[in-house]
Amino acid sequence: MKRTNFICTKCKKSFPIEQVYPRCDICNEPLEVEKVTKGKINEGNILKQTMLERYADFFPFDKADKDISLSEGVTPLVGSPKLASELNIKNILFKNESQNPTWSFKDRGTVVGVQHAISLGYKCIGTVSTGNMAVSVAAYGAKAGLTTFILVRADLPPEKINPIAIYHPILIKVDGDYGKLYFHSLEIGRQNDIYFINSDVPFRVEGCKTIAFEICEQMNFEVPDYVVVPTSSGGNIRGILKGFEEFKLSGLISKVPKMICAQARGCSPIYNAYIKNEATISRVETPHTIAQAIANPYPPSGNEVLRKIKDNGGIIVAVTDEEILQAQKRLAKEGIFGQPASAVPLAAVKKLKKENILNENDTVVCIVTGSGLKSTAALEKHDLKVLNCKLEDLNRLIGNKL
Amino acid sequence: MKRTNFICTKCKKSFPIEQVYPRCDICNEPLEVEKVTKGKINEGNILKQTMLERYADFFPFDKADKDISLSEGVTPLVGSPKLASELNIKNILFKNESQNPTWSFKDRGTVVGVQHAISLGYKCIGTVSTGNMAVSVAAYGAKAGLTTFILVRADLPPEKINPIAIYHPILIKVDGDYGKLYFHSLEIGRQNDIYFINSDVPFRVEGCKTIAFEICEQMNFEVPDYVVVPTSSGGNIRGILKGFEEFKLSGLISKVPKMICAQARGCSPIYNAYIKNEATISRVETPHTIAQAIANPYPPSGNEVLRKIKDNGGIIVAVTDEEILQAQKRLAKEGIFGQPASAVPLAAVKKLKKENILNENDTVVCIVTGSGLKSTAALEKHDLKVLNCKLEDLNRLIGNKL
Repeated sequence: MKRTNFICTKCKKSFPIEQVYPRCDICNEPLEVEKVTKGKINEGNILKQTMLERYADFFPFDKADKDISLSEGVTPLVGSPKLASELNIKNILFKNESQNPTWSFKDRGTVVGVQHAISLGYKCIGTVSTGNMAVSVAAYGAKAGLTTFILVRADLPPEKINPIAIYHPILIKVDGDYGKLYFHSLEIGRQNDIYFINSDVPFRVEGCKTIAFEICEQMNFEVPDYVVVPTSSGGNIRGILKGFEEFKLSGLISKVPKMICAQARGCSPIYNAYIKNEATISRVETPHTIAQAIANPYPPSGNEVLRKIKDNGGIIVAVTDEEILQAQKRLAKEGIFGQPASAVPLAAVKKLKKENILNENDTVVCIVTGSGLKSTAALEKHDLKVLNCKLEDLNRLIGNKL
Repeated sequence: MKRTNFICTKCKKSFPIEQVYPRCDICNEPLEVEKVTKGKINEGNILKQTMLERYADFFPFDKADKDISLSEGVTPLVGSPKLASELNIKNILFKNESQNPTWSFKDRGTVVGVQHAISLGYKCIGTVSTGNMAVSVAAYGAKAGLTTFILVRADLPPEKINPIAIYHPILIKVDGDYGKLYFHSLEIGRQNDIYFINSDVPFRVEGCKTIAFEICEQMNFEVPDYVVVPTSSGGNIRGILKGFEEFKLSGLISKVPKMICAQARGCSPIYNAYIKNEATISRVETPHTIAQAIANPYPPSGNEVLRKIKDNGGIIVAVTDEEILQAQKRLAKEGIFGQPASAVPLAAVKKLKKENILNENDTVVCIVTGSGLKSTAALEKHDLKVLNCKLEDLNRLIGNKL
């Protein structure tokens, strides 16, 4: 690997890049890879390139292992003039991460984590997750031929379990305090030589940088005013911001957009600390939201997101389940069906515009983190219309609808 | 639109490109757009291009309307050395169409159909489908702001209905002979100025050409020996073959691969005619297969597929549900979770290799048509393993598994 280090996001202590344990031994805050300050894009036909090849300068690997890739990334940035005019802002664009190999943004971080694990000689990987990340790590573990441990909550229903199990990981339902499992799994990993690619570990954050890189390319290096990210553990928003910062340091863009950390009101530990002007988050005791993919009651990067958003001049906002459902419906009218968590950014934009925090000159990018097919149960909350008709009456019914 | 014509795939009679009715008034066989014989690729950064822009020479539109695109296509071609060695063939690669905006290959044909509809001034579109195509047309109809009629079978369950309904089309459950609905809808369309973008209409076939175009680019214009396509209506395999033919006519590739039309044994009308050496297909009276996405008992392009495969020197094959499930499981071990229909190509390759029809020098591309998340009910047929464990016993359990 190239010469670089991990640094503690809080105290700035330096750690070797070969380490797997993702947190500082002094502050227990997350580590991150030192920022790349001089990189360029490896131009080429993206149909034949992996993400790690195109942006190789921004990763510490000597060489990207093509065999572990499922061709993650290269997701669309879809603009909606109709919606922009409705909201009375300049532009709104959706970065549709549901077009990844396992239909969520998680694949970007997973492939980078697997690349790090393989570089260090690991034969086993794992993760703790009940949704997108479990599916992603199971898929990439299978592709790379690694022994893969997936730890989930004991009460996860079969419709969530089976799409993980089909990749044939070692899938374990763990009966006990799920909140403790994140830290407990890191310890188990340390003892058993298993690389746990959990939600906000440094190389997962590195993978999320590529969302920013692609947005820059797609917008001809004129960055948006705001990027809105549904926020759970905090790994994704950290990665996206770091990506913009590294492109700016490298002279590829002239400014860093403001980040909007968007949470669901029913589980908004980062937002709660932000409005109380506290430096550290507190655990949400009874999380309850339809946006299950971001219902982390004690996000491991929560404090770091508070610090980062302050530095960046960004915003932290929370929206209700009702606002989320309305946004999910409106987003579908743009042809994009996101899971409830993925509608949180649009709900946040609507709210912030109403409060005059966003204005009519703003260009906003919303991150659609995962496919609506992952949470079809949520659709029952919508009042969806279906007509019934006999074949012989069809022509008349359709005629009436015109 | 550029000067070109529809021609009847059977009698070669010519029809104006402005027509919407997709079949010959003499033979009732499908029409197709005349082949493009001189085109080149519009090289550029695919992150910023739509499919219709990159391959504009191969479409009759004066200009692609960017606002109707959800950034379809640009899907991965993922090789599997492990699986190739297991099967004892040279190469096997998977074109993963599940990474499209509505998670199936249908989006390619839908956007081209919508572009044609808009070029002709249509304000209404429709389709007849119970699955992938319904979702796709609903999404693109919403994006383009068109009135969109989706006709489905009366007995479609809510878990299939809701992911269509979320896009807010005019969704109609039709009680009556579903087999007749394809032709009936075309008539209704003719009478009511609705453009029905059904399964194998000419511009849907045009959209599927881009699968071939991308494969050519991804393989550096050295085409595979075989391309295996799960076949239902016949529109997709016709489109992919036409794409290769147009690239060959344009001098971009030196040969056209042999096409393998792969059907599910429980509903294999094209295969049935092929083994009996008949020129026309017969309706399958009681279709029954786990690969529901390709369970069309009377494919509207069935006869044309028979003709085309004969000309092309290709193969038609059918596989059992058991073979499909095994293939779905094996494919997931490569990190790709396809719906049962999408596992049919791998099952077909396995069978044809066993029968020595494929050999160890062959390079084969399998089309993974849609996401496994579309048919999670099928997962209950698998014997999927999940372990249970108390938090305090987790370290020991994991230690035992190493």
